Amino acid sequence: MEWIENGSVTTPSCFQASGIACGLKRSGAADMAMIYSPRPCVVAGAFTSNLFAAAPVEYDREIVSSGNPVHLVVVNSGNANACTGEQGLRDAERMAELAGSMLMVHKSQVLVSSTGRIGVPMPMDIIEAGVEMCVKALSPEGGLDASKAIMTTDTVPKSVATALEVGGATIRLGGMTKGAGMIAPKLKLQPPQATMLCYVTTDACIERDALNACLAKAIGMSFNRITVDGDTSTNDTVLVLANGAAGNECIRLGTVECDRFGEALVEVLGDLARRMVLDGEGVTKFVEVNVRGAASDLDAKTCAESIANSALCKTAWFGADPNWGRILCAAGYCGISFDPYRVNLDYDGVPVVRGGMEAGTPEADLVEVLKKRCWKMDLDLGAGTGSYTVWTCDLTYDYVKINADYHT
Amino acid sequence: MEWIENGSVTTPSCFQASGIACGLKRSGAADMAMIYSPRPCVVAGAFTSNLFAAAPVEYDREIVSSGNPVHLVVVNSGNANACTGEQGLRDAERMAELAGSMLMVHKSQVLVSSTGRIGVPMPMDIIEAGVEMCVKALSPEGGLDASKAIMTTDTVPKSVATALEVGGATIRLGGMTKGAGMIAPKLKLQPPQATMLCYVTTDACIERDALNACLAKAIGMSFNRITVDGDTSTNDTVLVLANGAAGNECIRLGTVECDRFGEALVEVLGDLARRMVLDGEGVTKFVEVNVRGAASDLDAKTCAESIANSALCKTAWFGADPNWGRILCAAGYCGISFDPYRVNLDYDGVPVVRGGMEAGTPEADLVEVLKKRCWKMDLDLGAGTGSYTVWTCDLTYDYVKINADYHT
Repeated sequence: MEWIENGSVTTPSCFQASGIACGLKRSGAADMAMIYSPRPCVVAGAFTSNLFAAAPVEYDREIVSSGNPVHLVVVNSGNANACTGEQGLRDAERMAELAGSMLMVHKSQVLVSSTGRIGVPMPMDIIEAGVEMCVKALSPEGGLDASKAIMTTDTVPKSVATALEVGGATIRLGGMTKGAGMIAPKLKLQPPQATMLCYVTTDACIERDALNACLAKAIGMSFNRITVDGDTSTNDTVLVLANGAAGNECIRLGTVECDRFGEALVEVLGDLARRMVLDGEGVTKFVEVNVRGAASDLDAKTCAESIANSALCKTAWFGADPNWGRILCAAGYCGISFDPYRVNLDYDGVPVVRGGMEAGTPEADLVEVLKKRCWKMDLDLGAGTGSYTVWTCDLTYDYVKINADYHT
Repeated sequence: MEWIENGSVTTPSCFQASGIACGLKRSGAADMAMIYSPRPCVVAGAFTSNLFAAAPVEYDREIVSSGNPVHLVVVNSGNANACTGEQGLRDAERMAELAGSMLMVHKSQVLVSSTGRIGVPMPMDIIEAGVEMCVKALSPEGGLDASKAIMTTDTVPKSVATALEVGGATIRLGGMTKGAGMIAPKLKLQPPQATMLCYVTTDACIERDALNACLAKAIGMSFNRITVDGDTSTNDTVLVLANGAAGNECIRLGTVECDRFGEALVEVLGDLARRMVLDGEGVTKFVEVNVRGAASDLDAKTCAESIANSALCKTAWFGADPNWGRILCAAGYCGISFDPYRVNLDYDGVPVVRGGMEAGTPEADLVEVLKKRCWKMDLDLGAGTGSYTVWTCDLTYDYVKINADYHT
């Protein structure tokens, strides 16, 4: 597998994309994106598990579960179309219909996504003009523009592509993602929303059940392991579109080729997910929380998420404060069972805690680790073989600033 | 029931207290407190449910569950004596023994508490000198001094007293508490730690099982309903000492007198708990989250806690941003069931959401509510009769500052 420099959703064959500014954002920044494949695409999707799933999420779920091939994805930023009732559903459908009609594609073959403020009706006149601009701007080089147009509080666009040999042909995967706050996706395949959005294109030929299986695994290894603020959005969406233009022998479930494709998808989603955390709202530190030695994988997950979401741990990391007491405290209240006297903790391989007490490493050595932009902790609970990893970040002044000022 | 101005733990008869500075805090602020009753006291206690319960918590649990009467409580701030292993347990016991020996009280009749940094061995030479100073400073007017000496990041001491007629006599309750961060107590009676500490004295005569029952109920109506940052500490402790000096007919379980005493205890703990939130780290807003119409009380609790701990909700409150989408979002991902289209939300009685969508109240009217120092929301899920209330606060620059700089 080979990463492709400046790769994007238009790196795979026969995909076009665009990103334009139509006026949904007061700032005048790009706010609508489109991905188009003239060839029909097999699609797999995962969406938020939030009860207040946004209108476009409800709309997409139906399309994806129908099994119909799709040609088009339209995404707007600047408005989430969530908590907008029946009108919101009509607006999502209308957005799909408008875009489809300009490309001779039926609305049942068009997916839509929205991200932005919750509870504001969609300004359909602006949407309509935007869709027209987006269609006109479609280009085989439009992937990077699209990745910019889906940003909200992101500071950098996040785009990637890779190539590998599968089934006698070179296939490519391209991906883009956005999301900086309200990030703690709990995605469910077909039936799931954060406001993280992620789109993957591939020119591989792959059967639908194989694509679903690969996506389910890849989500579990990527977006469902990240948290910025512990808030699971109403709009989280991951879509994978496969148009088969690479000419490989079609990938079937349970084959070596399926495994290879799945591994590539894990890498692509993992890379995008890590970059999302690093570009999280106000983030200055990326922290990998590895918990092992738990009684079960589920216990390890509960513990890792408790640490990753603890306001006290996250502010300590911002301050490069090795305050391990807060980490043990978050493990101790998360509701799982273990013996406190058997707990060990390392920061980047440097011993911090042994047997539930300080390991004796000079504090200055720990501070050195915590000053790094990316570091990891290994927490061993000494209670079994369960393990889990979460990617998280610090909690900073800028997070507060961004979210206290969001509206004004 | 009557509140007593400038009341404290020494307002009830025959209690003495003191608060002094012995050098545990680098700042030179008061850091050790003592409450003493020459008469033996019936005691009830509730402690943290964190697995890493601090040494003094483990020590106190044994004393409280033994049922023996106690005479003395010694509290230090500046060091939590948590994650300190066997040595920590010996230090807690030694602290009790030192204090007891100076007052001719056996260590089994002495309770100890600690609050401060986790994982640092207790400096026993300082503790020893402090205990001696504290005993010498004991006075029937020492309650307010004691309430200052237990503070950590608190900005104001929190002390209260009340009087009521029970069983033919006037009885008094006095209380003090501390805690500003690591506040999300999940106290369990006898077997529970946040770093909130609370001490209540009363000159009532009350039987032990009656006192336990009253405390269990009062905790459920007060400290277990508050959250500042969602972090449940290793040291949370609530102790109630009853010395019987009022001369009332002894209060027994299941009597009207027990109900009256219980109501007074609910009021005292409720007042202290609300003041704790208002003095939480960096707090500028006190928010009462009322959830009703849930399928069960437990569902209502899950939902209220999800909102009260949401970083996005808390930062919006700081910014006086009526962003109700974040509240619905936090309700939507908390894992309970309800129909999004039946949800209503009010801020201080002003309609915000009706049927899952905006109620149409002008935004300026909502902003007016959110600018208040204290306000409440009523969220009706339309799914049943379950209800629950949580007292919480905003998340501010100062919270980040306090906790990123704590160590340095």
